[in-house]
Amino acid sequence: MKALVTTSLDPLTLELRSVPDPRPHPDEALIEVHATALNRADILLAIRRPVGSPLGLDVVGTVLSPAADGSGPPAGTRVTGLAANNAWAELAAVRTDRLAAVPDSVTDTDAATLPVAGLTALYALQKAGWLLGKHTLVTGASGGVGRMAVQLAHAGGSKVTAWVGSEARGTGLAEFGAKVVAGYEEPPTTPADILVDSVGGEVFTTGYKLLRRGGMATVFGNTVRAELRLPADWGHARPGVRIEYLFLLDEITRRDVPADLALLLALVTSGKLVAELGLLTPWTDPQPAIAALHSRSVNGKVVLSM
Amino acid sequence: MKALVTTSLDPLTLELRSVPDPRPHPDEALIEVHATALNRADILLAIRRPVGSPLGLDVVGTVLSPAADGSGPPAGTRVTGLAANNAWAELAAVRTDRLAAVPDSVTDTDAATLPVAGLTALYALQKAGWLLGKHTLVTGASGGVGRMAVQLAHAGGSKVTAWVGSEARGTGLAEFGAKVVAGYEEPPTTPADILVDSVGGEVFTTGYKLLRRGGMATVFGNTVRAELRLPADWGHARPGVRIEYLFLLDEITRRDVPADLALLLALVTSGKLVAELGLLTPWTDPQPAIAALHSRSVNGKVVLSM
Repeated sequence: MKALVTTSLDPLTLELRSVPDPRPHPDEALIEVHATALNRADILLAIRRPVGSPLGLDVVGTVLSPAADGSGPPAGTRVTGLAANNAWAELAAVRTDRLAAVPDSVTDTDAATLPVAGLTALYALQKAGWLLGKHTLVTGASGGVGRMAVQLAHAGGSKVTAWVGSEARGTGLAEFGAKVVAGYEEPPTTPADILVDSVGGEVFTTGYKLLRRGGMATVFGNTVRAELRLPADWGHARPGVRIEYLFLLDEITRRDVPADLALLLALVTSGKLVAELGLLTPWTDPQPAIAALHSRSVNGKVVLSM
Repeated sequence: MKALVTTSLDPLTLELRSVPDPRPHPDEALIEVHATALNRADILLAIRRPVGSPLGLDVVGTVLSPAADGSGPPAGTRVTGLAANNAWAELAAVRTDRLAAVPDSVTDTDAATLPVAGLTALYALQKAGWLLGKHTLVTGASGGVGRMAVQLAHAGGSKVTAWVGSEARGTGLAEFGAKVVAGYEEPPTTPADILVDSVGGEVFTTGYKLLRRGGMATVFGNTVRAELRLPADWGHARPGVRIEYLFLLDEITRRDVPADLALLLALVTSGKLVAELGLLTPWTDPQPAIAALHSRSVNGKVVLSM
């Protein structure tokens, strides 16, 4: 089969190569891949693996052979899920406990935006728990996960402040019910119960200081790659505030991923979650997608179609 | 009645004064006070309140009048509990949901060490959850709370490293099953699952870096009053690690304090928790107790007896 593999790590370059067909483990279904999305996580993983490695987490396709152990969806089912760095290929073997059936109402490209970005946003908010009537501050709200977090928080009845780097990056977020604050030099001032942060540095510190007692700070990224710094009264001035870092590939080991994907798919079907497509490009030409993600020039998700 | 009130805040000075007897609310029992302990929290609270304020959180005594609403222990019961800055007096009105009956096996002075220090240590560890087979690192382990945390973690089946400022401060901790690391310039190196910190600054950062994936850092103090600083990979390098600050007077609003005090009292009775008495002094002369706490010259709890 054909698969995208890295041919250079700096700059990151991918090429279609002929590779052996996957040989599924007993708990893996063999998927004919229709679409995949490109995430910052993919790029971070790509540059940490040897040149020539396959890649790809988000996978949408049709089950060619169900898992030998009888688990998961039968042949012919259209599915979405989390592959193990092997989604950017014609065929992918994927664990059935990382897959969910896609309803007809959700397109391949929409479904491809959900696993990494949707689950990260969902789990970030679930760590806070109760949403109804709370106030959620999402930093880096223009990113793939950020836009999902804004919508999920809103769908759960939370007020939402979406903090983005610029007016242009905030496009569309107000339509999801968010108050948009543009520019990291002009911080929001409204106290919050929940902070979902992926920026780090001063932006995280500012967001943290806005948390009310009993609040929750979930962090899933550190774009500025700065150390975490909080004032000396970080705890005592904010009783009961929790801080937790969410690393999706660790988090899923403790989650019911099929059920959680089913929830996200149902929210897309009901219109509560819009899978925003920022760029759709054929997988035979992945470089524009990588460039778009690097330059943060695209609002919404970057999807490769097979 | 007589009560200790502040007559100066800097330096903190207390004097016995005649004040009106307390008038209990319907959910408060009137206690004849036998003993109280002195905590750093008392001092921190004292200097934030006007000169002339009463003080005191830990209370041990006998119920003179049970609560009018019928809750709590009957008259004559010996109790320990958390007063609301009014324990350092001949009589104290205390909410019944902050009181527990003291078994005959536990002395007044031992019971007085439990509410603030014991509950703080208990809740700090409970935030981590499972103890058996885990490794707990307690910083500031020579303090009142630290010594309780070391014993409770050990009683729950956790290996314990007790990190203290000096050999002298670590006296007795090895007998509680802890590996003692003395000196903050020579950090421990063993990975830990649970960090209980009250020092802050570099000590917290070092402890945090020792946490394994899925670990829990509970902080209940910040002795060095430094900002919280963690390396840029603080989250991603430690998947699932949680950080939470514990402020006892907030935490108890979400806890069953009588049941938790009963647990501590039972542990004292069974010998699993030793209420270490560092200094026992009559309440008519509280200044040596304040000085001892300020200078950290005492290992164990400081108790005033009435």
